Amino acid sequence: MNKTPVGILGATGVVGQRFVQLLDDHPWFEVSCLAASNRSAGQRYGESCDWHLPGRMPARAADMTVNPIQDLGDAPLYFSALPTEIAGQIESRLASRGAIVCSNAAAHRLDPDVPLIIPEVNLDHFELLTVQKARRGWEGALICSPNCSATQLTLALKPIQERFGIEAIMVTTLQALSGAGYPGVASMDIAGNVIPYIAGEEEKIQKEVIKLLGEQAGGEVTPADCSVSATCTRVAVREGHLMSVSLKMRENASLETLEASMAEFRPGELVSGLPSTPEIPIHVSVQRNRPQPVLDLLAGQGMAVSIGRLRACPVLDVQFIVLGHNTIRGAAGGAIHNAECVHALGWLDGC
Amino acid sequence: MNKTPVGILGATGVVGQRFVQLLDDHPWFEVSCLAASNRSAGQRYGESCDWHLPGRMPARAADMTVNPIQDLGDAPLYFSALPTEIAGQIESRLASRGAIVCSNAAAHRLDPDVPLIIPEVNLDHFELLTVQKARRGWEGALICSPNCSATQLTLALKPIQERFGIEAIMVTTLQALSGAGYPGVASMDIAGNVIPYIAGEEEKIQKEVIKLLGEQAGGEVTPADCSVSATCTRVAVREGHLMSVSLKMRENASLETLEASMAEFRPGELVSGLPSTPEIPIHVSVQRNRPQPVLDLLAGQGMAVSIGRLRACPVLDVQFIVLGHNTIRGAAGGAIHNAECVHALGWLDGC
Amino acid sequence: MNKTPVGILGATGVVGQRFVQLLDDHPWFEVSCLAASNRSAGQRYGESCDWHLPGRMPARAADMTVNPIQDLGDAPLYFSALPTEIAGQIESRLASRGAIVCSNAAAHRLDPDVPLIIPEVNLDHFELLTVQKARRGWEGALICSPNCSATQLTLALKPIQERFGIEAIMVTTLQALSGAGYPGVASMDIAGNVIPYIAGEEEKIQKEVIKLLGEQAGGEVTPADCSVSATCTRVAVREGHLMSVSLKMRENASLETLEASMAEFRPGELVSGLPSTPEIPIHVSVQRNRPQPVLDLLAGQGMAVSIGRLRACPVLDVQFIVLGHNTIRGAAGGAIHNAECVHALGWLDGC
Amino acid sequence: MNKTPVGILGATGVVGQRFVQLLDDHPWFEVSCLAASNRSAGQRYGESCDWHLPGRMPARAADMTVNPIQDLGDAPLYFSALPTEIAGQIESRLASRGAIVCSNAAAHRLDPDVPLIIPEVNLDHFELLTVQKARRGWEGALICSPNCSATQLTLALKPIQERFGIEAIMVTTLQALSGAGYPGVASMDIAGNVIPYIAGEEEKIQKEVIKLLGEQAGGEVTPADCSVSATCTRVAVREGHLMSVSLKMRENASLETLEASMAEFRPGELVSGLPSTPEIPIHVSVQRNRPQPVLDLLAGQGMAVSIGRLRACPVLDVQFIVLGHNTIRGAAGGAIHNAECVHALGWLDGC
Repeated sequence: MNKTPVGILGATGVVGQRFVQLLDDHPWFEVSCLAASNRSAGQRYGESCDWHLPGRMPARAADMTVNPIQDLGDAPLYFSALPTEIAGQIESRLASRGAIVCSNAAAHRLDPDVPLIIPEVNLDHFELLTVQKARRGWEGALICSPNCSATQLTLALKPIQERFGIEAIMVTTLQALSGAGYPGVASMDIAGNVIPYIAGEEEKIQKEVIKLLGEQAGGEVTPADCSVSATCTRVAVREGHLMSVSLKMRENASLETLEASMAEFRPGELVSGLPSTPEIPIHVSVQRNRPQPVLDLLAGQGMAVSIGRLRACPVLDVQFIVLGHNTIRGAAGGAIHNAECVHALGWLDGC
Repeated sequence: MNKTPVGILGATGVVGQRFVQLLDDHPWFEVSCLAASNRSAGQRYGESCDWHLPGRMPARAADMTVNPIQDLGDAPLYFSALPTEIAGQIESRLASRGAIVCSNAAAHRLDPDVPLIIPEVNLDHFELLTVQKARRGWEGALICSPNCSATQLTLALKPIQERFGIEAIMVTTLQALSGAGYPGVASMDIAGNVIPYIAGEEEKIQKEVIKLLGEQAGGEVTPADCSVSATCTRVAVREGHLMSVSLKMRENASLETLEASMAEFRPGELVSGLPSTPEIPIHVSVQRNRPQPVLDLLAGQGMAVSIGRLRACPVLDVQFIVLGHNTIRGAAGGAIHNAECVHALGWLDGC
Repeated sequence: MNKTPVGILGATGVVGQRFVQLLDDHPWFEVSCLAASNRSAGQRYGESCDWHLPGRMPARAADMTVNPIQDLGDAPLYFSALPTEIAGQIESRLASRGAIVCSNAAAHRLDPDVPLIIPEVNLDHFELLTVQKARRGWEGALICSPNCSATQLTLALKPIQERFGIEAIMVTTLQALSGAGYPGVASMDIAGNVIPYIAGEEEKIQKEVIKLLGEQAGGEVTPADCSVSATCTRVAVREGHLMSVSLKMRENASLETLEASMAEFRPGELVSGLPSTPEIPIHVSVQRNRPQPVLDLLAGQGMAVSIGRLRACPVLDVQFIVLGHNTIRGAAGGAIHNAECVHALGWLDGC
Repeated sequence: MNKTPVGILGATGVVGQRFVQLLDDHPWFEVSCLAASNRSAGQRYGESCDWHLPGRMPARAADMTVNPIQDLGDAPLYFSALPTEIAGQIESRLASRGAIVCSNAAAHRLDPDVPLIIPEVNLDHFELLTVQKARRGWEGALICSPNCSATQLTLALKPIQERFGIEAIMVTTLQALSGAGYPGVASMDIAGNVIPYIAGEEEKIQKEVIKLLGEQAGGEVTPADCSVSATCTRVAVREGHLMSVSLKMRENASLETLEASMAEFRPGELVSGLPSTPEIPIHVSVQRNRPQPVLDLLAGQGMAVSIGRLRACPVLDVQFIVLGHNTIRGAAGGAIHNAECVHALGWLDGC
């Protein structure tokens, strides 16, 4: 099989580098274009980019020349790790002229005709593309992956919501440094410290989770009827967002039943067959002091979430801890996963 | 004025060292006995104790000889930083033979006839001593200071509860390393990591907060009618517990009113005159990314708490961040503060 | 090919866990015995052992029952990660009754008839085994791998010493937490801090490096005629020792020649064919702020060392930075590498 | 006594904030001008400046309006924490029109007619001002304080050089985050990591130390005849540079004599009387794992250096560890100390 050529927008940032790393040996996709700001354009990727990930930069990428954002070639598929403020326009332009854009940027996530997808959670939201096509007249399509925290929280909640319903969600996050990109958080601000605020993050979680858990009919999503309260903090962890979650449920369920519904959660057939789908999407820790970022980050190659400490909540109904990999499942890996759905659905065939 | 001689039980641990540091220049008290386990007993304090606090060990303490726990002399006042499992008996014995014991240990905190005191919060709970004396026949008395997290949370909540009532409290803590004592948390467990569990901590918060906020009448405390849900995590911060708090209130109040009630909270006259009472018990941060452990830890010389980010909670009613110094306000400083009350009430006079 | 059954002594510690991890899929060896202190003996490994490494504990090991140190079965090959104080006797007993023991413990490293081996550096030191056998009358044999810091320093120095001679070595180390085992360094001691002392470490480096670089003839090693000065510090890094090294050389060599001699250094044929031998033993960083623990730790799957910043030294002759993985190349991986030599030399055949 | 009004150039940076903090209650100086880049100019200092130091911003400074660099008023004394690239010109202009400038910037440190001063070390280098005045025709004067690492190293070495002579110095530094200013080092670069390179730092140490230890005669300094080799690394410590130092000496001296010469080192009468002079400039640690940044940073209120682990060096002659506070003794405190000399010498009288 010939691999589909793909472009990466914002290739030199922390999430861009994750795209490069995760796509290095991808069975279906092959990087044909690395695009970044004008400062980097024209240089070899290996020179223009300070590599922040453990392990070597993939040799193939290192030798590619960085494209300017103005000249993106004509790949059938693009991944976007662009800053929100410029993502909107560039992504629209690419989609309008026929490309599929799988974006990790926030610009279009809440547009009513843009599918915000976690494959295991809401595959049927791809139906929004029919509205998108009709309304915008694009040849291509734009698909978004959610905010890192929203992704892992929603994946963990899906089996509970599906079976028992969720009325309210309270979450306090302890988020990793990589989530702020590079240079991101100054070391003087976070060394031995906690910062109890992340600009924009709480709103994203509150809005994206209810879209993700919302019901789709006729290409329209009705947000889930569920209050969401989020408090976001930054801690001195390199990768891995940890969350303390409490839920008010619609139906009673024993802790055993809830735990089983999470542990046994499996995606449908199409999603199960994708290269990036973890065999077990939700790992349930048995030790009472888990999950932890350092130890559990790479569950399912960084595509699974881990939960632990499931117990009754004296104020709402149940509470537990969730951990996920913010730059794999919560960013680059999530967008690639979405592109794999697109591929499996046959939408890249004509390209 | 002659200073009252005091003994410190468990003087070589992290909290014991804080007692030594905070009492070094105390206007009312003077350390006359440093007691620790048999391993240290008989040695100079300066030799038996690895000092873990920034700054030098006080010279006067360094030259004292450490007493064994079996031989505590006859000071009229003792501070206890003993491990819970041995604290109970030793503290009782001292109180029975006439000493006032201000304990930071957990052993007796929930005993119905033991006052659990935060001076700005529940000074009237000292009334439990009449019951304690009657029931136990002790010459002396035992007074407890609460768990570190319970202390700072309750101090922040007091003005709200007093004026508007609190129906439910949800809290997720990000707690400092010093709270686990020494050697405490292994560096391999916490470096670049978060541990989402602290043994016994959640129960302590849930039970102590409602005793502290409870109503006292006739020497008996009726716990506050309020659900408390706590999730405790450990982060790689040296000192300072940070908390994400949400409240369900009994009466509506605007955010402005709530903030003012916290900012303007002042203790009564007796407490205001104590050496350790902070001028402003609750500091309200104006910057939206505060309070932070590194920057705000020493508000009120470590005896005030700092709050910030007061805002509406989409699930309960309001939410905010609380920060306090866990080994000053939350441990040694709190117990000394209680002893200052005892002194101001004249109960040390006869000793 | 049937795999050789091997035992791991001290299997629950940090280095023991690395042995378990690295041997999980080893092409030549298969773990048949996991031995640890009596506290763990009799339990499933998965229960008795708090796993400290990223990623899951290998399932096969998790299900094995831990042997007590008194009952080690009769594997032909043992790896020892025992504490020095008990390693000496146990290792001798196993070797005397016929086993090959590849030890990472310090007990016997400096014994004149015990080969202290880094395969790429001094394969000919295996000749000491003839003296060992003659002198001790053992059926089996004892082979040691060096101290973690000595290993990576010596591997980096070998090509220079070989071609130009080294008269003096000055090294200051910045060592990782994992080197102290578990629980090892208390978090209160190292959080945001540096400890400029590691008990015994400087002596080990000073003595082991000259044995490793020494000349072997007739089963005897004459230590290299080279002064070694080591200052060892501990920093808050999880894995990876970094070193600042300066050398006084016997012969002049340009920086280019020196760098080439390190970059082009390759082991002989037998060693090149071993499963754990890195293709490039010494990675030379081109960026001036490298190597760094987080970014370069896994060069050669943790079996290569990385050097950088090679430059003239105003006091001695040349200086550079060295980084190595202290629990892979510097401990478990090094001992396994030695066992692979033993296997390739045919000494396990009769077992 | 009326206090001398002083201006702070670069008042919003990390070193500028230290100036503000240390001058808040200074007995001789009073801040009359806070100058910073145009971005901050015109705003209240309290608003324009994110305070990075533990404890509150001094209230008096918070209320001052920030001056632009173009309008510095006419204080008789200025402290400069400007970036090197703009410091040169601005400092010269101020000195030319009559002000005394005590600079912490690197721009003029090596100018032959600019005194580079550590009061306890080379007070006589102030004599260079006669040449400076003659050559430049300035009404005022420019005095520099050295690089942070050079300062603490030289202070520790002075008594040894004075009594026994030093032929060569080898130093490897482990430097704190605050030395890089703000935002300085990205947290993703340093969390759980070491960076073995600091741009320009090694050259500064190598050149400044020999000027500081050089002999002054007739307003000219002959650099000390001493080779200096420096390797500089960055570690995840907030404040406090730690150094591993080895020396080749000109005369033999026992370790006891050397230690005594450091412990007993006292400045002359004029310097002893200055407000910022530490009573004991060089603290000698008795514990073998000291000094450490967290525990020993504040020796002499951050104006003393601490040394420890003095021992023979197998390659050179002796070696030891040095620790100093890089933003107090090594930056703002050092420049203030120099200004106190100027004041004590009577040179501010006419202003």
